[in-house]
Amino acid sequence: MKIALLGMGTVGSGVYEIINEEKGNYFAKAQEKITIKKVLVRDKGKKRNDFIDEEILTESFDEILNDEEINAVIFAMGGLEPEFTFMKRSMEKGKHVITANKAVVSEYFEELLNLAKKHNVMFLFEASVGGGIPIITSLKGTLQINQIDEIKGILNGTTNYILSKMSSEGKAFADVLQQAQEMGFAEADPSADVDGFDVSRKLAILSSIAFGSHIKDEDIYKRGIRDVGKEDMEMFSNLGYILKFLAHSKRMDGTYSASVEPVLLSNKDIMSNVNEEFNIVSIKGNIIGELQFYGKGAGKNPTANAVVGDLLYIMNNQNSRESIDLSQHLTNKGLGAFNGKYYLRISLKDHPTFTAVLDLVDEVSKIKKMMVEKNNVFVITEELDAAVVNSLVDRLRSMGTSVFYARILS
Amino acid sequence: MKIALLGMGTVGSGVYEIINEEKGNYFAKAQEKITIKKVLVRDKGKKRNDFIDEEILTESFDEILNDEEINAVIFAMGGLEPEFTFMKRSMEKGKHVITANKAVVSEYFEELLNLAKKHNVMFLFEASVGGGIPIITSLKGTLQINQIDEIKGILNGTTNYILSKMSSEGKAFADVLQQAQEMGFAEADPSADVDGFDVSRKLAILSSIAFGSHIKDEDIYKRGIRDVGKEDMEMFSNLGYILKFLAHSKRMDGTYSASVEPVLLSNKDIMSNVNEEFNIVSIKGNIIGELQFYGKGAGKNPTANAVVGDLLYIMNNQNSRESIDLSQHLTNKGLGAFNGKYYLRISLKDHPTFTAVLDLVDEVSKIKKMMVEKNNVFVITEELDAAVVNSLVDRLRSMGTSVFYARILS
Repeated sequence: MKIALLGMGTVGSGVYEIINEEKGNYFAKAQEKITIKKVLVRDKGKKRNDFIDEEILTESFDEILNDEEINAVIFAMGGLEPEFTFMKRSMEKGKHVITANKAVVSEYFEELLNLAKKHNVMFLFEASVGGGIPIITSLKGTLQINQIDEIKGILNGTTNYILSKMSSEGKAFADVLQQAQEMGFAEADPSADVDGFDVSRKLAILSSIAFGSHIKDEDIYKRGIRDVGKEDMEMFSNLGYILKFLAHSKRMDGTYSASVEPVLLSNKDIMSNVNEEFNIVSIKGNIIGELQFYGKGAGKNPTANAVVGDLLYIMNNQNSRESIDLSQHLTNKGLGAFNGKYYLRISLKDHPTFTAVLDLVDEVSKIKKMMVEKNNVFVITEELDAAVVNSLVDRLRSMGTSVFYARILS
Repeated sequence: MKIALLGMGTVGSGVYEIINEEKGNYFAKAQEKITIKKVLVRDKGKKRNDFIDEEILTESFDEILNDEEINAVIFAMGGLEPEFTFMKRSMEKGKHVITANKAVVSEYFEELLNLAKKHNVMFLFEASVGGGIPIITSLKGTLQINQIDEIKGILNGTTNYILSKMSSEGKAFADVLQQAQEMGFAEADPSADVDGFDVSRKLAILSSIAFGSHIKDEDIYKRGIRDVGKEDMEMFSNLGYILKFLAHSKRMDGTYSASVEPVLLSNKDIMSNVNEEFNIVSIKGNIIGELQFYGKGAGKNPTANAVVGDLLYIMNNQNSRESIDLSQHLTNKGLGAFNGKYYLRISLKDHPTFTAVLDLVDEVSKIKKMMVEKNNVFVITEELDAAVVNSLVDRLRSMGTSVFYARILS
């Protein structure tokens, strides 16, 4: 099969190496070779690694589009445009599309699936969620027999690295973030990671497939991890909890709830031991029960592995029908499905605030556990609706306190 | 597609229910129905659940074999014979074979794969390892691109239940085993579980696929969990370890090592939090890195889910080629790959033995850590070869001590 590769960044060069450098097991067993016939780059003249054959570089997408020998296009560029337009045009020309781009998939999911169907091509995106973890494939397989009503996952390596380091080394958020930025694990503008936009796109894709309805990034509640402090980490350790930045979605009776937020897990929970750049996804099927999938959530080789896996799927399953169906209508119930006990740390400015704070908390919840240390009040509430807690926190903050809070999941 | 089902026990009735009772998601989306045309049972007259259509029951395998409408046969009987003979005859008649029987697969793996190839049928066995965990499918997928050189797994629910309960409730092995037997989790003769024969068959199947060579049950070192005591569990808890009954295999330079034995994991290891009837499998690929798969390792619904999944695979992939290749020649290196630190608990009969015991241990290892409590000596060794430790333990036992020991993995 002859293919084109769009982009020669981290993922693109990883794909190039697996296919052309016999790095993998693939070539030993392949019945049909894969040939990368063209690679789209912005600047042909740029100095590149020696191993790339410069003959196949092009700056023209039309050259790829009009090459009838090319059956599949691998998208490894990033951003919504021109990637989305190029995907549509590729499909219209009868070329299969593979992408690692979670933004495009989550935003145009339904449209891309419909286009693929219309033009009788495959649209595959295993690499867009969970790096090397075969979660999209596993989700499709599980759905053939099961109804899936819940998804949980740790899906962002940068924030998991930050929380792991804060927990193991007792450092402050800002210090670990800076360290991660210096090491290249975090962007100069860390918002996509620490405020949850990266994770919510991945959760949007998984939830859409599992629940059969196009759930978008903007349908997902997001609360980041910027407020977590050293004092919180110490308290979690004393209480036997581990803080994780969790993607969570549930479906029930024609509605769904989806959120990305800091959540406390028991240190006996499998997910509590998922550290640094690793990801994990849990899905619950009505017949098979809970399944969990763990692996490297990012990085050149795992991501490229997922892309090449999609390519091999196309080669081996030319007659396969698309199994993803987004035709169900579900109502967004906001945080409706996420009641639970909550942990709150309320940092007071001055002593007089103390009783006012307690009165406020008392109004909405029996306090199950309370600790006071210096100017911090730590509270574990009884089981509460998420919306009630959010409004309580708003009122606490309006009194001039600073608050970190997290749902206790297990 | 019309199929036959051999056996109406736990797995067989689970399969029957998924297909005939619309319990799953399958019927909503199926483009082609599955019809169970015949069910082989030992005694047609036996009283059964109302939901089973008695018309399709038969006591004659030949009746199934000679029915040309039946394309696939699901084996849910157990034991090596007549299952193996029936499989061969089914394949010779051009019928696909699906089984949940790990004993038949591990024993006749190469022969069954060759027969399937010769007769151009599929031979699938997802349910034979890890219950509902899609491990065989994932292993095949990972192998398309990766070389896999290590497998680790918790693959037996009964022993994992026993160890979990001993750890959480401080009970003795014999008491928890008896409780498990009363609850139906353990057999009256628990040997297949607690001595490792069940796990070793599963490890044989996984290792054969991963390493590309037919590794059999008898090629795998087995050491059971009968010797573990309450005093060991207390010590593990103090040291931050969790004891698991681990299947472990490694390949290197044309050799392999495979074992089933009690192993100590750090309580920060993901596998340490896999409890009760759940299973987990870790595989390490040279490109994708480590992947782990977690789910229910046994039970009617998860196992039946895996069987029906194989059936759907056959329906959707009629032209797929078998990807399992067992043609490599690997030498069994015994425990050669499994050096490590070891935990030993040596229970002395009398005081004079004490110095003799220490002398013996000193001969083979610098002691990294030692504790003495009542008549028990607890030792953590430096890194040692497994064979050295086994012979040390033999000599300690010949002195009249009783010993429990375990490799420290993480």
